[in-house]
Amino acid sequence: MSEFNKLSLDAVQEEGFKPLRKTFSEGGNRNNHTSTAPGSFKFKDPLFDYYKYIDYREEIYVNRLREAVAIKSVSAWPDHRQEIFKMLEWTAAWTEKLGGKVQLYENPCKTQQLDDGTTIPLPPIMLGSFGNDPKKKTVCVYGHLDVQPALLTDGWNTEPFELTEIDGKLFGRGSTDDKGPALSWLWMVEAFNELKMDLPVNIKMIYEGMEEYGSEGMFETVNELAKPGKFLSNVDFFCISDNYWLGKNKPCLTYGLRGMSYFEVGVECSTKDLHSGVYGGSVHEAMTDLVKLMSTLVETDGTIKVEGVMKDVAPVTEKEQEIYETIDFDLKNYAEEVGVTTIGEARLRHDNKKDLLMARWRFPTLSLHGIEGAFSDPGAKTVIPRRVLGKFSLRLVPDQDPKQIAECVTKHLNAEFDKLGSPNKMWVKAHHGAKAWLSSTDHPNYTAAAAAVEKVYGLAPDMTREGGSIPIATWLEDATQMNVLLLPVGACDDMAHSQNEKFDRKNMVNAIKVLGCYLFEIAKIKGPKPSECRCEPISMEDMMIPGAFARGFRCKCEI
Amino acid sequence: MSEFNKLSLDAVQEEGFKPLRKTFSEGGNRNNHTSTAPGSFKFKDPLFDYYKYIDYREEIYVNRLREAVAIKSVSAWPDHRQEIFKMLEWTAAWTEKLGGKVQLYENPCKTQQLDDGTTIPLPPIMLGSFGNDPKKKTVCVYGHLDVQPALLTDGWNTEPFELTEIDGKLFGRGSTDDKGPALSWLWMVEAFNELKMDLPVNIKMIYEGMEEYGSEGMFETVNELAKPGKFLSNVDFFCISDNYWLGKNKPCLTYGLRGMSYFEVGVECSTKDLHSGVYGGSVHEAMTDLVKLMSTLVETDGTIKVEGVMKDVAPVTEKEQEIYETIDFDLKNYAEEVGVTTIGEARLRHDNKKDLLMARWRFPTLSLHGIEGAFSDPGAKTVIPRRVLGKFSLRLVPDQDPKQIAECVTKHLNAEFDKLGSPNKMWVKAHHGAKAWLSSTDHPNYTAAAAAVEKVYGLAPDMTREGGSIPIATWLEDATQMNVLLLPVGACDDMAHSQNEKFDRKNMVNAIKVLGCYLFEIAKIKGPKPSECRCEPISMEDMMIPGAFARGFRCKCEI
Repeated sequence: MSEFNKLSLDAVQEEGFKPLRKTFSEGGNRNNHTSTAPGSFKFKDPLFDYYKYIDYREEIYVNRLREAVAIKSVSAWPDHRQEIFKMLEWTAAWTEKLGGKVQLYENPCKTQQLDDGTTIPLPPIMLGSFGNDPKKKTVCVYGHLDVQPALLTDGWNTEPFELTEIDGKLFGRGSTDDKGPALSWLWMVEAFNELKMDLPVNIKMIYEGMEEYGSEGMFETVNELAKPGKFLSNVDFFCISDNYWLGKNKPCLTYGLRGMSYFEVGVECSTKDLHSGVYGGSVHEAMTDLVKLMSTLVETDGTIKVEGVMKDVAPVTEKEQEIYETIDFDLKNYAEEVGVTTIGEARLRHDNKKDLLMARWRFPTLSLHGIEGAFSDPGAKTVIPRRVLGKFSLRLVPDQDPKQIAECVTKHLNAEFDKLGSPNKMWVKAHHGAKAWLSSTDHPNYTAAAAAVEKVYGLAPDMTREGGSIPIATWLEDATQMNVLLLPVGACDDMAHSQNEKFDRKNMVNAIKVLGCYLFEIAKIKGPKPSECRCEPISMEDMMIPGAFARGFRCKCEI
Repeated sequence: MSEFNKLSLDAVQEEGFKPLRKTFSEGGNRNNHTSTAPGSFKFKDPLFDYYKYIDYREEIYVNRLREAVAIKSVSAWPDHRQEIFKMLEWTAAWTEKLGGKVQLYENPCKTQQLDDGTTIPLPPIMLGSFGNDPKKKTVCVYGHLDVQPALLTDGWNTEPFELTEIDGKLFGRGSTDDKGPALSWLWMVEAFNELKMDLPVNIKMIYEGMEEYGSEGMFETVNELAKPGKFLSNVDFFCISDNYWLGKNKPCLTYGLRGMSYFEVGVECSTKDLHSGVYGGSVHEAMTDLVKLMSTLVETDGTIKVEGVMKDVAPVTEKEQEIYETIDFDLKNYAEEVGVTTIGEARLRHDNKKDLLMARWRFPTLSLHGIEGAFSDPGAKTVIPRRVLGKFSLRLVPDQDPKQIAECVTKHLNAEFDKLGSPNKMWVKAHHGAKAWLSSTDHPNYTAAAAAVEKVYGLAPDMTREGGSIPIATWLEDATQMNVLLLPVGACDDMAHSQNEKFDRKNMVNAIKVLGCYLFEIAKIKGPKPSECRCEPISMEDMMIPGAFARGFRCKCEI
């Protein structure tokens, strides 16, 4: 029995699983582990054993993900706050077990104030590191361990906090957003350890527990840790796996994200909820005002009606128009994924690929999410709610500024409320905002990742933008001036934030493979470490890449 | 020890309470039990012992109400359906214990279909009777034993299903709506039993468990039971205690109620909830359409914008204008009760008594209650809800017809939706509807109740209308042609349907007193029993009472 097989079997047995009956050639075939034709292995790829080992461990990774999903670390549920602590500690324990160093960094904001005035603790931020060799480059990984709310009654087919496999899909809240991808880094390190392979780079981890609730304290933390001599000061490359492919099968790298501004508009008409029969006619009902205000924000076709919001949207250039043509994106599949073809008259907002991708990626949108304080249960209740809060948000694009957007929205709502002539109390609250983010596909961080993806999947990734927001990408880049790579490992139909979130078993396995390979590719990059380079930054104009909008280029030696 | 004292003490000890240290004169003083000046008792009132006995039993009544409130008989909570059965059985057991006959009448609609297609059983209707003397008149009492939903997190200061006394107020869901009042009839019968007093009339009870959810099956039941020879066929008078005084202290009798039409308007844009970042820009969002539709229904000042709705509203006559002048109603107290004076700019919809009472009683209103399917929790969630249901209702007045209102509303929403040009699926569902109801203050049923109130409280009740809806009042009257009396026993600030619902301890005690006295006054009415009278009904014109809007007069011998 080879060293590899012995190790893997030990590890498998340790966790109570029978080894899968696989031959080398099956594993190799499936994932194109060598650069030769499938079926003829020449052991050329230095990562061949690594890939093989990961295939053998599949069941173990599923089981660990099951453990992680069972921890209900919902950041929007104040009464579940301890579950976030538990999830961070679980991850910290694994990091230490695998030889890493861990610090649970106190959240600088310390506590979170709830609407009723009480405060609850904010979870710490987990800082981990593997290796500290000054000759190696340092890659810092960001992930989050909190999840969106989920209840079986929301429309889940399975218990959201019990990982349930159906047809190779691992259903569970957090499976793909972001527990599965975040934990992959640990299992990658474990594989290197077990195979006695040296890590090609130093790894740092910055994992938080409040991402789905505005990442309170992260901005401050990142800026503090970026100071000279501190945790992030010697990081050369960042990598984040917290978004999704454009399709179900073809991997992509993401070089752009929309930003966000989240708002609450509140109206209060009395100090008590009132019976609409007994009291109807007595007050100026808060819901009437709120619904009218919300109806002024956006049109059915998506046109945003808030004056000033579209002012700073970067114009579409001819070059940009072209890049959408080549992207692998099937409108019909997408309609099925979104679920608009099966419900009679409903349809997608655009009937062609280019307009639809632009609507998702490079134009702002405004979505009305719901109303807090009104009747929201099934059935009929005849209440006049005393105080209602409308929730809505805008997705922002270059060059919109959340602060300026908040001003426009507040001004708009105040003006609309004045028109109503209502004596009620009205207020607007701008929550967390984040600028849009744009990197470049030609940065070595991206070319390294593209090479890794091609080796594992056998095809080059699409270069895409995305509609979602990951504020941390901007924060890390702004604080450190180092490039941030978005390396999605989950499919477009993973349903993050929705009912029936899942992570495909094969994508979970390939994620671990890609991450290891990516580190090898990073190690190959020539020239000084970006964190030590003293070149002058080059001008933005020089950096304009056809079809992209340059950002993330810091100096000449990086390209 | 007198028979009375012995009995009351036995009963008190049986239920584990020490007798209260009260003297006859205290009890008498407090409630004006005789027609002489306080302090000088001449034992003229035949009900003196009855009043006294009830005062002695106060703690017991509180404890029984506590038991009833603890049963979570929420008709809007499908998973609590068994609690309604429990509450009906609890009441049936008490009725039998007190010598009544009980039938749990199967609900003719049998089951209720939930939105997910499953069905749950509908509770039976409790039919009870005390006495069957053909020489006596028969009074039938209606009550309901189900309650509105309630959660501590809705803003209750105490656990809603644990009766909690604070300053003589008994807080708990159902305390005043309608468990407290409905059970008072039983404790009245118990007092007559214990005091060996003959009931002056036959009593029938018709108690249901689905009132707060549309009284499914009641209309059919009432019409079936009204047939010759059946349960309701020999009823002479109906009495319902399921509404509230106009103020906190002065009792009233209610001769008018508004009707209701409850609606759901649904919009669906996809088969899945979507992440607003990833998918924002892809679909025509359901919330955008729904909010726009809801915003077209009503103006901030209460004006209903649905064409045709105001067409049949009975015009205000000069005589009607006058009756509002004399009613004891303090606008400032009312503003405090509603809670509009303490929140800055908010204020009542009208600044004078007459307009405000008319807005509550004799004009229709439209209230937006909330949205099902959208985000409704505290915090921020970036969801595009796939399917949202707007809930709203109109309170109707004479001579509006719920069917015609449903047609107007549906037509209006369809027209407004057409204007949006949305490809989404939209539908309108009209729930239960009820016509407004109007009786007359000169009917002997009302004069008997007025006399009883005056004897117990020492002052004549105001004659009022009300904004709420009690469809059963119309159903009973239409099916039997007998008069229905609304005899509220709770105060205006009891907060039925709202947080912190309560029943004042003193009102609970006085309710039992008034009900007994009312039966005595009914027994005194001269002439044939209304159910046996064969007079021709007299014309509506003859019956126009100054200030009232005749209804409920059936024949000449009734006046």
